[in-house]
This record gives sequence, C-alpha cells and structure tokens, in this order.
Amino acid sequence: MPDLQDSPFLRACRQEPVPHTPVWFMRQAGRSLPEYRELRGTGSILDAIHTPDLATEITLQPVRRHGVDAAVLFSDIVVPIQAVGFGVDVVPGTGPVVEEPFAGAGDLERLRPLEPEQDIPYVLETVRNLVDVLEVPLLGFAGAPFTVASYLIEGRPSRTYAKTKAMMLGEPALWHDLIDRLADLALGFVRAQVEAGASAIQLFDSWAGALTPEQYEAHVLPASRKVFDGLADLGVPRVHFGVGTGELLGLFADAGADVVGVDWRVPIDAGWERIGLDKGIQGNLDPAACLAPWPAVEHEVRGVLNRIAGRPGHIFNLGHGVLPETDPTVLTRIVELVHERTAA
Amino acid sequence: MPDLQDSPFLRACRQEPVPHTPVWFMRQAGRSLPEYRELRGTGSILDAIHTPDLATEITLQPVRRHGVDAAVLFSDIVVPIQAVGFGVDVVPGTGPVVEEPFAGAGDLERLRPLEPEQDIPYVLETVRNLVDVLEVPLLGFAGAPFTVASYLIEGRPSRTYAKTKAMMLGEPALWHDLIDRLADLALGFVRAQVEAGASAIQLFDSWAGALTPEQYEAHVLPASRKVFDGLADLGVPRVHFGVGTGELLGLFADAGADVVGVDWRVPIDAGWERIGLDKGIQGNLDPAACLAPWPAVEHEVRGVLNRIAGRPGHIFNLGHGVLPETDPTVLTRIVELVHERTAA
Repeated sequence: MPDLQDSPFLRACRQEPVPHTPVWFMRQAGRSLPEYRELRGTGSILDAIHTPDLATEITLQPVRRHGVDAAVLFSDIVVPIQAVGFGVDVVPGTGPVVEEPFAGAGDLERLRPLEPEQDIPYVLETVRNLVDVLEVPLLGFAGAPFTVASYLIEGRPSRTYAKTKAMMLGEPALWHDLIDRLADLALGFVRAQVEAGASAIQLFDSWAGALTPEQYEAHVLPASRKVFDGLADLGVPRVHFGVGTGELLGLFADAGADVVGVDWRVPIDAGWERIGLDKGIQGNLDPAACLAPWPAVEHEVRGVLNRIAGRPGHIFNLGHGVLPETDPTVLTRIVELVHERTAA
Repeated sequence: MPDLQDSPFLRACRQEPVPHTPVWFMRQAGRSLPEYRELRGTGSILDAIHTPDLATEITLQPVRRHGVDAAVLFSDIVVPIQAVGFGVDVVPGTGPVVEEPFAGAGDLERLRPLEPEQDIPYVLETVRNLVDVLEVPLLGFAGAPFTVASYLIEGRPSRTYAKTKAMMLGEPALWHDLIDRLADLALGFVRAQVEAGASAIQLFDSWAGALTPEQYEAHVLPASRKVFDGLADLGVPRVHFGVGTGELLGLFADAGADVVGVDWRVPIDAGWERIGLDKGIQGNLDPAACLAPWPAVEHEVRGVLNRIAGRPGHIFNLGHGVLPETDPTVLTRIVELVHERTAA
C-alpha cells in the first residue's frame, strides 16, 4: 500500500509540492454514474448509507471510474441528526425533510450528543471497509451547524432561510444553544470518521452564503470554529466549504480550516487572496459548465488552472456538487486534463 | 403637483443631496399586503397585469400604506415575451413556466420585436393612469436578457441554470442571437414605459449572479449594455440589479447603469467601491431579516445606513424582493426609520 501521507491530495492540503494537482468532485459518488443508479434504484439515500457494503461500493465507484485523487465517504449531512432520533429523511428530488421542525427550546433535547459506536456503527463499518481497500485518501464530512440548523428550522430546503434568520436574529440565546449542539454533533461525527480511518474531513456549510458577513461572524462562526478546533489534535486536514461565500472567505478561513473551498462565482486567485495564501484552496469549476461540449469545458478548466499559476496548495474540484445530468465521461476527461496540465 | 425631478428618489439617482434618503422595496406591491391579497384572489399575476384598473390600484397600495419614495409598476419580467406570443405563464407558488422552452434556432422567430401600442396597451394604460395620480416617481422595469433567457431555456425557475449555461458556452452564436432579441424586447418594453410617463427604469438581471465574471463579461454584458445604451437619449435614471452579484458589480456598472442595486451579501460600502463612487447604489437590507423582531430589524437598517455614512447617491431598498410572509407594518416602520435617521 502507498503511504497516503505522500498522496497528492494530502500533500496539497499541506501546501507541499505535488506530482500533479489532485482532483476530486463533490458528489462524485451519485446520480451522474449509471453504475450508481443501477445499484441504488429508488428509495431514500439514508437506506443506502445504513448498508455498509452498499455505501462502500458507491464510494469506490467514482474512484475506479475517474481516477480521482480522493474518495469521499458516501454519506449525508443529516446522518448524525437522524442517528440521535431527530426525525428526518432525504426525499428524492427534494432533499432533507424534517418531520417536526425545530421551533423552540423544548426541541433542544431532541439533539442529544452522538455516541458513534452505538448510533452510527454502519458509518464506521463503511469507513473501515474503505480504508482497507482504498489507495487514495478517504475524505469524511459533516454538515456545518448553520446549514444543518437551516434544515431543522425550515423543515425542508429553502431559498430564503427566513425562519432560520428570524430565529438567529430574534432569539439569539436559543439560536446559540441550537448551533452549539449541532457543533457537538458535527464534531462527534467527523472525529469518529477520522478515528475509523478517514484521512481528512470537510465541513459543508453549503448555505452560509445566504448570510451577511456580520450575521455570519456574530451568529455562526463561533460554532464552526468549535468543530475545527475540536479536530486539531487529530492532525488531519480540515476543509471548509460553502456556496456563494465570496464575501465570507476570510471568515471561513478564520474559523480554523486548513483548506477553503470556493464556488465558481469567485475567480479562484481572488478567492485565495481573501482566504489567505497560507491556507490551501479547493475549487472551482462551474458544475453547470460540465454540461457544455468538451471544448467549452476544457476552456473553463484551463481558466481555473491559469489563475492558480502553479502555486502549491490547490485541490481541483467543482464549485459545488456534480449535477445528476452530467455525462461522467466528461468528469474523467477533466481528471486527465488536470493531471496532464499540472504534471511536475 | 410637485416637480418629480426634485423628488428624493430622482435626486438620489443623480447623486444630488436629498432631504432624506429615499426608500422603496422591490415587490412592495404584492403578497405581503392584505389589501393586495384581497384584490387579487388566486389566478395568474398576468391576468391582473392585463387589467389596468387593477394593476394601477395594486401599484398604488404600497405607496399609500408605506409612504415610500417611488412606485414600482405592477408588472412582470415575462410580460413582453408573453405579449409577442411566446407561451409563458406565471404559476402561483412556482414562477414563470414556459410551455415550449427555447431549444434552438427555429425558436428565434417566436421572439419578434415588440410593438408596444398593439402588444401591451394595458401596460401603457396602467402607466398613464399612475402618472396622473402619483406624487412620487414611477419606476418601470424589464427583465434583463440573461435572466429572461434562463426562463425560456429552462422552462421554469432553476437552481443551476445548467441548460442555459450549456447553450451559452456550447452554442455561442445561437446564444448571441437569442439574447440580442431579448435585449431588443427589453429595450422596447422599458422605452414604452418611459414614453408613457415612467420616471426611471430598473433592469432586473436577477439570476446573473449564477455566472462567473468571465462568463458574464463575454456572453451577457453586451446584451445588457444594448438595453442601457438604447435608453440614454431618454435621460431617465437606469438602475441595474441582480442577486449574488458581488463579483460582478464592476461589470454591472460598466453595462451602463446610473445606479446599481446590491443584495445583502455584500457590505454596501464595499459594494459601492466595486461599482464606482461616481454611480448611485441601491440596497441592501436582508429581506429575511424583516421577519425578525423589530429591534433586530432596526439593528440591520442602522447597519446599512452607517456604512453609507451620508454619501449622496443611496436609495434604500431590500437586497431582494419583499418576502410574502413579511409583516407590512415592519416595512412602514423601516421607511419611517430611514427617513428620520437621514433627515437633512
């Protein structure tokens, strides 16, 4: 087995020189792959996550097919809250749907601490299966407190986060209690993944970009920092990602990440300046661009690489998850192109 | 009748000193008002737009209730495309839905030029009704070519704009022909509103924030510029707005607007620097913050005003439309607070 610490992905997380820029894709395991659709059929993603053999195979599919430089655990940000009994499902075509949304202090007790070996043995088994066979690092992940809170309060995906913001601004003590519990859950969830063998973790604050910088700094950053600080002793790279975070990138870095992921809206060189050149950066090809003909995709990929200009510490990725309608052969060509163009 | 050219709204558009900062709200006429819900009932918004007495009354409602400094025509960005026969409806709870989406060159002929007196007499009658009775300026508007194109291609509201971007990047000649026609339609639509008496216009490129700056500059900016340039001889202020445009603000200004609207994600002083201090700025209270208790709303309003620091050329607004669940008495208090805090 190769020493994973020497892998391009982990070297890039540490801003060390690499033989080629590492590539992985958010949602690389998923509906863009025919072999995934064949395995999964219909039904909730949570059923597949609860079945280690299935979750293991789904995690491996894109690694085999695309030759990406990291595997990302097939999981979901609602797994720990479901595991402690806060009724939630992931409805195909909709996303997370909560049976009884979080509405007040009486709901806090529905968010007890996670006991990984009892609550998520299936996740730990999947991680252990994977690290036995993978030749690239396995990235674990959790949802960040704000993004998970938004699902708990809204009850389903939202475009406006109106109830969430009303609680955050109008009931700050309750809000703090809520996201502090969610920070503990996220921390317990990712620590357990690392202890089972994951080489790095990503905190998805996918929807934090809906906030003003002032709102984020006052009401969200402390909880995300608690997660990152709580991982420091494990020594694994910590990636922090959200969509539409152009104005938040400095704060995202301040929360304690080693690498910050950026979406496609920010030119990646400008984003890196905001994050700080002492951190790594991940991104940022427009996932929708992957649906264009190859010459247009190639133009966009080269644009990202040109802006990076060879600086160590870049992990190539999309600016958000793979769209289900993406032709997977395009993703494979992107991996090849990035590897070839950045070969040392 | 007062001279509207001396109104706070039009003075602010020209960056002249004002007796108080003018305020209006995107979607001020609409579902947040009980008197609107009573008038409208169910049914398509397009039916109400086609009925001048109704559209006039709906436009006046928020002016009476809130004391805002501008009226905004009750209309919709799909009005001109519907008027030339491109089948589209606005479905309550969904948004614009196109019967047969735009798919190729054969669909271009479905977008013939607008002949306002024949195609949209109801809009012109509404504008004429309004300018007879209004004591504040009337703002007309149109959808910008990119945003309208996204509805025509996707067929309905989209989160990813995947088909739109695939056409833009993959079939640039077709894309150019499409948005050039949409620029002509938008231009014809707003010119007619100004000629009927509107005092200013706003171009809504609501979803342009989904683009990278490079995509926007190459594939969208020229069409929006055509609209702004085509209005120059009329001498009315031209406002340009989109959501999530933090990285595009300089390009939005370059397209030829006199005032650029910004959403809440960008601190408004930082946004103004990107737009250029020689232009006006509109915004940028978080619409979701309006659902919080009043002290939190007041804190957010003061935050915007503090960042403006009295510089002439600011029009207070939300960073996007009023949310339907907003308590309208909060909006009235915001108008009062802004007027009071900025009184010369």
